[in-house]
Amino acid sequence: MIDLNKSQIQGHFDLTAAAQAIENAYIASAEGRVQAPPVTYLGFDTANGDCHVKTGYVLGTEGFVIKVATGFYDNPAKGLPSSNGLNLMFSATTGAPLAILRDEGWLTDMRTGLGGALASRALGVDAFERVLIVGTGLQCRFQARCLKALLPERKLTFTIWGRDAAKAEAAAGELGAEGLNATVAPDLETACRAAQVIITTTPAKTPLIARNWIAPGTQITAVGADSPGKQELATDLVTSADLLVCDLAAQSLHHGEFATAEAEAGIAEDVVALGSVLSGAHPGRADEAQITIADLTGLAVQDAAISLAVLHAAHPDLT
Amino acid sequence: MIDLNKSQIQGHFDLTAAAQAIENAYIASAEGRVQAPPVTYLGFDTANGDCHVKTGYVLGTEGFVIKVATGFYDNPAKGLPSSNGLNLMFSATTGAPLAILRDEGWLTDMRTGLGGALASRALGVDAFERVLIVGTGLQCRFQARCLKALLPERKLTFTIWGRDAAKAEAAAGELGAEGLNATVAPDLETACRAAQVIITTTPAKTPLIARNWIAPGTQITAVGADSPGKQELATDLVTSADLLVCDLAAQSLHHGEFATAEAEAGIAEDVVALGSVLSGAHPGRADEAQITIADLTGLAVQDAAISLAVLHAAHPDLT
Repeated sequence: MIDLNKSQIQGHFDLTAAAQAIENAYIASAEGRVQAPPVTYLGFDTANGDCHVKTGYVLGTEGFVIKVATGFYDNPAKGLPSSNGLNLMFSATTGAPLAILRDEGWLTDMRTGLGGALASRALGVDAFERVLIVGTGLQCRFQARCLKALLPERKLTFTIWGRDAAKAEAAAGELGAEGLNATVAPDLETACRAAQVIITTTPAKTPLIARNWIAPGTQITAVGADSPGKQELATDLVTSADLLVCDLAAQSLHHGEFATAEAEAGIAEDVVALGSVLSGAHPGRADEAQITIADLTGLAVQDAAISLAVLHAAHPDLT
Repeated sequence: MIDLNKSQIQGHFDLTAAAQAIENAYIASAEGRVQAPPVTYLGFDTANGDCHVKTGYVLGTEGFVIKVATGFYDNPAKGLPSSNGLNLMFSATTGAPLAILRDEGWLTDMRTGLGGALASRALGVDAFERVLIVGTGLQCRFQARCLKALLPERKLTFTIWGRDAAKAEAAAGELGAEGLNATVAPDLETACRAAQVIITTTPAKTPLIARNWIAPGTQITAVGADSPGKQELATDLVTSADLLVCDLAAQSLHHGEFATAEAEAGIAEDVVALGSVLSGAHPGRADEAQITIADLTGLAVQDAAISLAVLHAAHPDLT
């Protein structure tokens, strides 16, 4: 059984291969060539913690994943990170354990970053350059890095907005030090009006972004909302968009960014799977004026895909 | 993160401590002091395999378990065991991974053996000695060993019946070599009439044991039926028994030994949790003439309990 810790995983990581594997997983999901049972949840009230267990398999691949993700929100006061977790891989031909990837949640952050970047690249207007990132946490960084990595020749400019200007400065400084063109957006409305792609990464519970702030041709990639009650975009922005895309409708319409719009206006019929856009089965953006929105809540088959990509990079002879 | 393989787990194993932990888990389950979300299932048609993921936590203990159990039924033709799996433990106070127990399914076999032994001990008539085991596989051995270990002073005699007499001979020989008094039962009806405790461990899909074979005072511990369609006991034996006990009614009545009786006669109101008997909340057997039946389908909190017992034995300073 292969055992890799976080730094070993990072050392073996091939972003391009992982992005390709995740794209394949989205397409497989849209085409029904996956197994993705319901997510298991445990809650720990006294410790202010929770645990999600996701299980996923892309049919025809070597292995399936069981991903454990914990969040214990009193940990920082103890000097510990709030998030932790690991990915276990098992052989889909013998059931034997293949690997434990003790990534401490890093692979989840990375696959979320890559998922957002794939959606932004697929749905943004041709040759877009002006990207606004809303939120200043880990996903601010991962979304920017992944999008830059998927569009290495593009002269992308990132503006970053956060409620806390100091955190926005810190994020922009960090990304700038990595060679990205990143600056702080002082005003969210102004920044929204100027952006071609907006990536929202916050845990907001009341919408941050209004419908009339969004210019024609904007792609919005929403990765923040992942449980009932979270919402980053005004409901009428969602209901009036020209194209709604998600990774999994059952999740997006229930506990993602699209949940309120679904409850109020019944948008289920209009939502397209990201995998259908990536495969070409759906044309995606129809013209340069459409406002398009992708809501991503995360798939276990992304975890399976990124884990297999790490295994292949670490052990090229893996059967 | 502690990493123990099968032989290390076996080397650290303290059966008495594990039995006590599992008894506590049954009681906690009966009293609602557990978390046990639905089991996750994956199926692999082309490889003739499946995977079950069970997650469980006994409130107030240090850690929760995620148990992965695979069964790939073409493996023996490849020289591999059909069953595999491992138990992962996480801290219930920080969410950090505590341990990976790469037991290859051994802890599941053991907790099933201990669960059956706890039920047989609790529900058999006073000072019972004559035990019949139906079935000649792994659980034949585990049930006999665990019951003997829980009743070390008792002069237990084990008779073993199987469809294949050679396999029954092999099991009896193996247990005899371990110091147990074990012989083969040539005829199942005769053996049932003579037994005080009957432990059924087969994957039978049509009942093996008829109502009129069972003498007053018999305890039957049924551990074989674990999916819809499996049944070891005649339905009228179940419906006419004086006491019906199970580890978890939702499982027993749906895919355990009690499923047919529930469907035909609606026995749900009569079924008692094993934990209630073990705690004394329910008196259990009322007299020496009752026919009592326990149906055990397996609980994730047994996996949590046995895993923590192993961790405590291997690392006495575990916080």
